[in-house]
Order: sequence, then structure tokens, then C-alpha cells
Amino acid sequence: MSDTLVNLRDIRFVLYEMLDVETLTKYDYFADYSRDTFDIVLDAAYKLAREVCWPSYAEMDRIGASFDAKTGKTSVPECMHRIWQAYKEGGWGGETAPVEVGGQQLPACVAAATSLMFNAANTSANMYVAGAGGAAGLILSFGSDALKKTYLEKLYGGEWGGTMCLTEPQAGSSLSDVKTTAVKASDGDHYLLTGTKCFISSGDQDLTDNIVHPVLARIPGSPPGVKGISLFIVPKYRVDDDGSVGEFNDVVTAGIEHKLGIRGNATATLNFGDSGKCRGWLLGEPNRGLTYMFQLMNHARIGTGLQATSLAANAYQHALQYTRERLQSRKISEKDPTSPQVPIIKHSDVRRMLLAQKATTEGMFALLAYAAYLGDKERCSPDETERLAATDILDVLTPVCKAYGSEASYESIVLAIQCYGGYGFSEEFPLAQMLRDCKVFPIYEGTNGIQAMDLLGRKVVMKNGVAFKAVLDEISKTVAEAAQIEPLKDMAGKVAAALEAVGDVTGHLAGIAMGGDIELYMSAATPYLRMFSRLIISWLLLWQATLAQKALEAGTGEKNFYQGKLGAARFYLGNELPQLHATAQILKNGERTALDFDEACF
Amino acid sequence: MSDTLVNLRDIRFVLYEMLDVETLTKYDYFADYSRDTFDIVLDAAYKLAREVCWPSYAEMDRIGASFDAKTGKTSVPECMHRIWQAYKEGGWGGETAPVEVGGQQLPACVAAATSLMFNAANTSANMYVAGAGGAAGLILSFGSDALKKTYLEKLYGGEWGGTMCLTEPQAGSSLSDVKTTAVKASDGDHYLLTGTKCFISSGDQDLTDNIVHPVLARIPGSPPGVKGISLFIVPKYRVDDDGSVGEFNDVVTAGIEHKLGIRGNATATLNFGDSGKCRGWLLGEPNRGLTYMFQLMNHARIGTGLQATSLAANAYQHALQYTRERLQSRKISEKDPTSPQVPIIKHSDVRRMLLAQKATTEGMFALLAYAAYLGDKERCSPDETERLAATDILDVLTPVCKAYGSEASYESIVLAIQCYGGYGFSEEFPLAQMLRDCKVFPIYEGTNGIQAMDLLGRKVVMKNGVAFKAVLDEISKTVAEAAQIEPLKDMAGKVAAALEAVGDVTGHLAGIAMGGDIELYMSAATPYLRMFSRLIISWLLLWQATLAQKALEAGTGEKNFYQGKLGAARFYLGNELPQLHATAQILKNGERTALDFDEACF
Repeated sequence: MSDTLVNLRDIRFVLYEMLDVETLTKYDYFADYSRDTFDIVLDAAYKLAREVCWPSYAEMDRIGASFDAKTGKTSVPECMHRIWQAYKEGGWGGETAPVEVGGQQLPACVAAATSLMFNAANTSANMYVAGAGGAAGLILSFGSDALKKTYLEKLYGGEWGGTMCLTEPQAGSSLSDVKTTAVKASDGDHYLLTGTKCFISSGDQDLTDNIVHPVLARIPGSPPGVKGISLFIVPKYRVDDDGSVGEFNDVVTAGIEHKLGIRGNATATLNFGDSGKCRGWLLGEPNRGLTYMFQLMNHARIGTGLQATSLAANAYQHALQYTRERLQSRKISEKDPTSPQVPIIKHSDVRRMLLAQKATTEGMFALLAYAAYLGDKERCSPDETERLAATDILDVLTPVCKAYGSEASYESIVLAIQCYGGYGFSEEFPLAQMLRDCKVFPIYEGTNGIQAMDLLGRKVVMKNGVAFKAVLDEISKTVAEAAQIEPLKDMAGKVAAALEAVGDVTGHLAGIAMGGDIELYMSAATPYLRMFSRLIISWLLLWQATLAQKALEAGTGEKNFYQGKLGAARFYLGNELPQLHATAQILKNGERTALDFDEACF
Repeated sequence: MSDTLVNLRDIRFVLYEMLDVETLTKYDYFADYSRDTFDIVLDAAYKLAREVCWPSYAEMDRIGASFDAKTGKTSVPECMHRIWQAYKEGGWGGETAPVEVGGQQLPACVAAATSLMFNAANTSANMYVAGAGGAAGLILSFGSDALKKTYLEKLYGGEWGGTMCLTEPQAGSSLSDVKTTAVKASDGDHYLLTGTKCFISSGDQDLTDNIVHPVLARIPGSPPGVKGISLFIVPKYRVDDDGSVGEFNDVVTAGIEHKLGIRGNATATLNFGDSGKCRGWLLGEPNRGLTYMFQLMNHARIGTGLQATSLAANAYQHALQYTRERLQSRKISEKDPTSPQVPIIKHSDVRRMLLAQKATTEGMFALLAYAAYLGDKERCSPDETERLAATDILDVLTPVCKAYGSEASYESIVLAIQCYGGYGFSEEFPLAQMLRDCKVFPIYEGTNGIQAMDLLGRKVVMKNGVAFKAVLDEISKTVAEAAQIEPLKDMAGKVAAALEAVGDVTGHLAGIAMGGDIELYMSAATPYLRMFSRLIISWLLLWQATLAQKALEAGTGEKNFYQGKLGAARFYLGNELPQLHATAQILKNGERTALDFDEACF
């Protein structure tokens, strides 16, 4: 067992040295904060994560959420009740929400750090909290005053739980095919919903008196496809005028999934309106549901990247401690078999695996915190130009956060397991569970294939490429700065070459698209996303290396920490980045085997 | 659920079209066989795999092997007893063993095909059979007549089980540090063993009356390190002179592992001689134990590659069937949201994932069958030159079979899960279990790091590089043939370029080794193995493509099958092979970040 869940020094490096989040306190929304109060939040979060959430990590999995088909009741493990109570008492339900609705009004980038801790400690548990916050966020952004009054404080305060209900059995990734219907009631302000939603995280539980479901559904007569989807707020129990929990709202749990991982979180199939009594309240305007839901989905995609990165970060800390303690074999140059065995961290192949984990998890956390920081600017900057610029970059980076975050983190945990050897395959140690938990992230919140199509099909081309170019410009700035620092020139050159290759391939693909071969263009989406992601992580590690080199030159101490930053960047640029060029070459070759392959030939 | 476990057409392609295994029947050892009788064996194996082993796949996992600490008894799931009985009745315990000791005297390459079926169906179950066969193989090769008489027929006939006992808690990968001792008894032909072995597959069970453990141990006074290790045959129960099971031999099961996968197989910790009564019989000569054990280990390494490939092959068949049936979304060019949804195999990103699985699993099976075929030549050819040539190539390919087989298969199953979407994460479908089962293969039978060191540190340099060069020469032959066939010229060129790059890097690394920097040389081992493996798979797929192209030109029918072969080769060469060049560049750059990184900086 590792003593630390995540590298706290790295979190502070990202927040204070890289993003300089104190500057956010100049915005009115964060004016009551300072570095000291951020630190108090971080310390409190880590204490909760380490002392309450983490000790129940294995139990959440071993006992898991359960469903009693006779009673129709879903139960969470007993430990989850204690964790929920602790979250509630600490006011962690609304970290970024306004104080007036029960939130802490924190910058999202600080919340990204606490999220790293909470998810590293017990991601199934944290999903219940995130579910409530997500539902609340939608109501906060798009709800009527009545909806806000009814739901916000309850959700942020942990009185009620929340979900997001998109997927239907016949329409997994294809939201265009959502069939749940919502018919305006003749006798009130509500609609009557009928339909089934599946794979609903935190979809049912016995933690709270009520569960609030934002549900995508069609109002009869709406246009077909995604343009005819509306969003409804559907509580499990109706809410009486005095705000208390009332009558059952005909939201029936049909069952929960028996899953590979995140077993402590109930992934439910929900039947809405089997008895014709399921009431939903329209959020915002009709037929704009998907647009609204995308706000939550974008948030959830960054959250998914964070979940994955958190598990990888914790697995890395475990691998680090294990390889420092486990004695096995000798240095290659040591020929005396009677000499003592050495800690396996002394073997370069083990250090290779550790460096890959370090670079991935630290690079990914930098990306996620940066994305959250952009979200803070987007939301709170008084300067419209700054807001729009933040939105552009954030839009482009979101699919990277989700898809590369989930894939690279999974591979990182695979390496941690390999460091553990046979013990990595044992369920007596936590790494096996981390691997199982982490497997969902490439799948849910839009599969990674969907993310890739989002990047290449939407984000790269949106606004005639202006948003995409804004990202490349940011990278150029970092490269230019690093190129001025002698020991970083080589690394700056590598990122510059990668930047050029990505620009080159993007132009090449744009030519294909403009030539009309959209199928070929889109068939490049997944390799393109991987290629682009490696550029992004390389950029952020170079950015970190620049700060580290300056700190070393300034002699501010913590030499090992900063040397570690330089090593992680050098390792990633030396060992991971070259794959970008291989992918670039593949895409420029116009690889179309998969596109043209006749499925009868499989 | 897929209707097929593995692609039977592909198995026949590899055996009959690629390896032309009928020619093996010219050797005395296989003289009683023909293609017809091979086919009978294959059909019978598939029937057993499909009808007996596969239906219990989930149950083996759900119930798992169990250990009762009070009684010290290990139990296997009830279904395993039925499976064992079926294996026994079919005489599957000694497929490649001589008829006179109860074997079927089959070529190992045919047994590789049946092994693919058995492991695809239920790998935990097959491990019990493989364990007995492995122990028997050691006795067959190195045992005295008395040991052979006592054990062989019982082991091959499924009366008794078997294991291999190498690992000790303080000496995982470092066999040099084995501490189990064996002291010559004063009153007989046996030794008295004392020590603990852990992670012993099939280490205990209630299937058979006895379990035969080949155990690595030290005779006091032997040289330190690997040169002082001897091999002993240690039965769980002593065998009386009439061959019946006698007194308990003081082999105590301390417990079994609670594992991520292969849960139906009992992975035991065994205490030998706690009461000073554990008798072992020396196999062969003292201090040559590791040499003997390597025969079994090499066999087991190919077997591990087969286990992994089998799971990936089955997962691929599942993904194929699922993606053909699952309707979701539309072609990108279809803008009408009311048009019907299409099977997801119509999406190029899904075909990309399927082609990656097809290329990997078919390429790996070709490698494994080829390795087994070389083993057949090594064992049975009357021509010494041919035998030695086969040994050389087999030695070089063995670490690729194990390490790349386990890694690439795992990645292939990850893709199959991605094809399934949310259902891939559900334990109601078999893919999640396949993923869990497959995770052990990069770890056991020598971690993949050990395999990489074996390849670069031993196999590449053995016999002054002659064995390694023999492999490159075989590749050159295939390239030269393909280059003569117009539609394959491009692919031949790609493999030729890869061959050159590998030769180049190998020379570069040899220079480093000769310059004395062995630590830098060996730090390249893992990327080197991956690079070399991609060359090997590319070669075998090109070989297959050559046969496919000829078959198409000859108009022998089965056009889809042969087009599929061409597509798989083209896909792998177009999408996987380019990574070889990236790795080659990394190694030529002299990447040494991991080697030089100070562990205090993590």
C-alpha cells in the first residue's frame, strides 16, 4: 500500500507555478480566495480522500452496489453512507457553484486538484457526488427560477442525488435515435415522460431521499434527429410545494449492471413512466436539449479524464513505493550471485516503466487542470476576448482530455501492474481494481471513437480553424520560450518538429475533406486524436520543464523535484513523441485499408 | 455470444497452406498421421472445446478455485471435474508425447491448433492439463527409467496432475536466489526438501489423486547462483512400489491467490518439508536443474503466447459477431436521421479496430504454429543441419511468442471491448473475463522484461549472431518472393525497409555493447523486443499474403478469405509497422533518460 494517493507537490506545482491560479482571484467570482485559502481547501480535500474515501476503496468493489429484484431497491455498500456523510459535512457537493446556492465558489482548476484526490481515493464514491453536481449545474445554467429554487441547494448540499440520462438501449452512441417521449400534460406545467434509459451512473442508490434525473426526450412533433431533443428534469419523487419529497414519480429501476469495475457505483437501467405517471419539467426551451446537455457532457468529459488520470496517479504512487522496497536481482554489471539483491527501481527497465507513468500522469493532470483553468476564464473573466479565447482552446482540448486521458491512464496502470509482477495480478493489492475501474473511461461519456470524430470533424474545423490555430499558437509560444534556454533547446526542437508535423497532416487531411472524401477524412479520426494528444502532452511537459529549469537556475531548492520534471519531459519527448511522427506518416500515406475493407472478408 | 471460438479456416490455412504440415509425416515419429487424421484430431478438439470447455468458461471464473484454511483442502469448481474427465477420456493429456507412454505422438504444430481451441474455450481449465504435460515432459527428457515408469503414463493419462515450481517469495524473477534446499537422504535414493514456492499454477486441486511437482532447489555445497540449482521430482503423495498413491509427502498448501483472472486455476503457495518429510527425486544430474527447466520454460513461454492469443482470437470472434449485429447510427454521408441505423461494422473506425484484432491474432497464431513446427523439426528431423537450424530460429522467436503475444493479445482484447461499448464493460458478456484472464500473461513464465533481456542479451548475440541472422535470412526469402508478385511489391518493400532498420539498429546496439556500455545496451531491451516483434509479425503476414495472392490468382475459390488475408497484412504493414521505425529511431538516438534518471527524482 502506498502512503500517498497522489503527488501533492505536483498538484501545487501545476496550480501555483504553472497556472499561477492566484491570479484568478482578481475576478470577482473568486475574490474571497487567496493562495492560503486554496491551500486550506486542498489540505482538507486530501484529508477526506486519504482518511475516509481511500480506506473503503476495496470494500466499495468487493461489496458493490446491489439491486434486489423483489423489492426493486438499490443499495450501496455501508461504507458509502459514511463517505457521503463526510462529503456532505465538508460541503464538497458544490465546489465550484455560487455561494448563494450552497456552493464553495472555487475555481474549477482548484476543484480539478481536489477531484484528482477524491477520484484517486475512491472514484465510484466520488461519482455519486459528481452526479448530483452535474444535474445541479444544468439547472443552474438553464433552469427557471422555480427549478433552481426547488433543486439547487438540495443537490449541492448532498440532500439529493443526480444523474444524466442520455443512453437508450437502441441508441448507445447515437443520440439522434433517442426515443423517450415527453408529452405536455393538460393539467400543469409538466410533461409526461415514457421511455427507458440505460447505463445511468449513480442511477439509483439509498443514500438520498430523492434523485434528480436530467433526461433527454422528444416532444411529439419535434424535428427528427438531434434537433428534436429536449431536456427534462425528472425527479425520482415529486417535490411538494414546501420543497419536501412527495409522491413517487414513476421512475422504476429495472436493474443495475454487473460490471468489471466501478462496482460501488450503481449503473442503472431506468424505466420512466411505465405507469404513465412520470412527470418531467422542461429545462430551457424545447428542442435545445442536446445543446444544454453538451455543457454537462463537456464538463463530464474532462471529469472522465480526471477519473482516469487519478487512478493512474495513484497506481503510479503504488508502483513507486513498491519498486523502492521490493528487492530482486542485481545490477547487470554485478556478477557475484551472493551479493545482496537490489530494489527493483535500480533496474533501468523498471525506471522506464515508472518514468512513462510519471510523464503520463503528470502531463495529463497538467492538461486537465489547464482545461479547468480555461473554464474558469470562460466563466468569470470580465474580458470578452479572453473569454472567447479560453472557450476556443478548451473546445479543442476537451476530446483530448477524455480520450487520451482514458487511454494513456489505462496503459499507465498496466505498467504499474507490471512493476508489481505477480502481486499486480492479485486482488489483495489495489492495482487490479484500479485497472478494472479504469476500463470504463474509454467507453462512457462518449466512446473514444466519438471523441476522435469530435476533434477532427468538429473542433479542428470550427470557426474555419481559428480555435485549432489558437492551440497551435499557444504551443509555439512555449516552444519559443524554451528554445531560448540552452539546456532545453533540444526538447524545444522536438516539440517544434511535432508541431510542424501536426500542422502538415492537418493541412493534408483538410485537402482530402475539401476534395469531398469525407469518409476518408473521418477514418483518420482515431489516429489523428492520438497524434494530436501526444503533441499536447509534449507541449505541457515542455512548459513544465521550462519552469523547472528556471527554478533550478534560480536555486530555489527542491532540486530533485525539478530534475524529475526535466526527466519526465525528456523521457516523454524521447520515447513517446516519436510515435507522433509515425502516425503522421501513416495519415499522409492516405492509409485506407480499414475504410475500403469489405466486411465479408473478416 | 459468438457462435465460433476461433477461426477454423485460418487454422487450416496456417497448418496446411502456410506450414504444409503434411510434410512432417515423412518423419518416423509422425508416420502414422496424414492430413485426414490431423483433421479428425482438430475436429475432435474443437468439439470438446466448444461443447464442454466453453460452456463452463464463466462458471470457472465465478466460482473459482477455493481453499479451505481449516482443512487445507483446495477445490476446483464442479464443472472442472467434468472437463477433466472429458480431457482424460479423449486422451488429450499427452498430445505430442510418444504413444508408448500414453501420448498421441502428434506434431506440436497441430497441438498448437488444438491448444488455441482449448485455451480460447477455457484457459484456466486447460492449464491443469498443460501442467501435467509439462511435468511429464521433463521426466520424459531427463528422468531415469524408474521415474519414467512411475510417472509418465499417470501424468499423460490424466490420473495425476503436475506443475512447475520455480518462484519463491524472495526470488520472483531472480532464480539465482532460489533458497529451497535438498539434502541427500541417508536412507534411500531421494533427497529431503525444505522451502516455499509461490505463484504455482495448478499448484493444488481435487481433480487427481496425486500432483507431481518439478521443484528447483539447491543441494548444500553447490555453487552459488544459477549454477547451483538442481531439479527434483516431488510428488504430493509418495508413490508405492506398485505405482499406487501412498503416504503424504509433506507438501502443504499454504493458500491460493485471489486473482484478477484465471480464477478457475488454483495458484498456490506450497510449503515443502515443513515437517522434514518431503522427499524429492533428483532429475538428471545435480546443478543442471535450470538447464532442464529451461526446456519446460521455453515450451511454457510459447504456451503462454498461445494462451494469450487464444483469448484474443475468441474476443475477436465475439467483436466480429457483435459489430455485425449491433445497429447504431448511420454512415457519415447519410444526413437523414430517420433512415435506419446500420450495423456498426459499417463504420470505418470499427473496421479499423476489427482489422487490428484480425491482424494481431492471425499473425500471432502463425508465429506460434511456426514455432511449434520448428520444435517438431528440432525434435524429429533425421537431418542434424535441419534440426540445428530449427533450434536457432526457435530460440530467437521464443521471447517474441511470449512477450509480444501477451502484450499484443491484451491490446487486441481491449479493442474487442471497445467494439462492444458499454456491454464490453459488463461481466454479463465474456469479454471482461477475457481481459482479466489475459492480464497474467505479460507477467508469468518470466515477465516480459525478462523476455526482452533474453532476446537482446542472449538470443541476438548467441553463436556470434548466427541464430539471429538465420531469422533475418528467412524474412529476406519471403520478401524476395513477394517482391516478384506485382500486387505485393509495395508490401514487400515495407518489410524490406523494416528488415533493414532492424539490422541497422542491431548493429548500432552491438557497437554500444562492444564499447562496454552493457547497461545502455540492455536498457534498450524492451523497445527492441517490440520493434523486432513487429518485424516478425509483418513477415508472417506478408508470407500469408503471398499465399493468398497466389490462391486468388489460381482462382481456387474462397475469395473473401484470401482477400481478408491480404487486407490484414496491408493493415498491419500500413498501421502497425511504422511504429517500428519510430522505435528504431529512438534506439539509434541512444535514448538513455530512464537509464540515467536518479530514482530520488521520481
